[in-house]
Amino acid sequence: MNATTVLIKTAIQRWDDQVNRAALIISERSDETLAKQVATGKNTGAYVIGHLIAINDAMVQILGLGKPKYPDLFDTYIRHPDGVGHPGKTIPELRELWKETHDRITALVHQFPEENWLKRHANVTDEQFAQNPLRNKLSVLLNRAEHIAFHSGQLRLL
Amino acid sequence: MNATTVLIKTAIQRWDDQVNRAALIISERSDETLAKQVATGKNTGAYVIGHLIAINDAMVQILGLGKPKYPDLFDTYIRHPDGVGHPGKTIPELRELWKETHDRITALVHQFPEENWLKRHANVTDEQFAQNPLRNKLSVLLNRAEHIAFHSGQLRLL
Repeated sequence: MNATTVLIKTAIQRWDDQVNRAALIISERSDETLAKQVATGKNTGAYVIGHLIAINDAMVQILGLGKPKYPDLFDTYIRHPDGVGHPGKTIPELRELWKETHDRITALVHQFPEENWLKRHANVTDEQFAQNPLRNKLSVLLNRAEHIAFHSGQLRLL
Repeated sequence: MNATTVLIKTAIQRWDDQVNRAALIISERSDETLAKQVATGKNTGAYVIGHLIAINDAMVQILGLGKPKYPDLFDTYIRHPDGVGHPGKTIPELRELWKETHDRITALVHQFPEENWLKRHANVTDEQFAQNPLRNKLSVLLNRAEHIAFHSGQLRLL
């Protein structure tokens, strides 16, 4: 493997590891546990799961791979805090959506042509990207892996 | 910049961003707040900060850049759960240790010769590394950035 391939595979593995760890944390907790707040007065486990699905589903568009499949999650799980937006999904629904979303996105990520990771992501302009080539698609993937980690730290408290 | 340089700088920026966000979360909270548990019956904010300092200080050795500077933190903040190991540092001490540790390690990371990131880290053997070149030093840096994110999600609950 050349250096570029190793570096890209290293980053993709960070995504895989964070997705797998979060899936394990979720699978180890009952619906009843996930319905609880991660700390007093904070988001429920269910809200955190819905938030991760919504954010990661939206990554598809930022990588230039199509539209989000579940744009309806945006209102409940991104725009509004827990309990304020449209009524959310049930926990069994969230478990299914989690699996479908992350299986689908992980497959896309593994099929993504190597050279594309270095191109600009959809939330920056050509001009911004010319000034800062670090605003590439691989940075989005790594950022989303860290975002999963951030909320996994909260789910683990349940 | 060639592809290798862009990819390595992209990864280093993930470290920088996570360190800076955690530092901000810590700086925005009083000593009194950080003394509280992140959720009922869980680690205190102070313990989480000590844990991140201890883990990141130890990364220096895994990258082949010397010995940890604060090996005494290992017992309190890694080996034992909160309140069980040797008495820990005060919160003002932890704030100073956080800054010193992350300023020092971030400087080392930015000075690290590019080609070294692709070499094996100190916790794998040559034989293991020959079978899996993804067990390189850059994967350690990315993993530690995610580890900061994991615990930042907890500190933010305070």
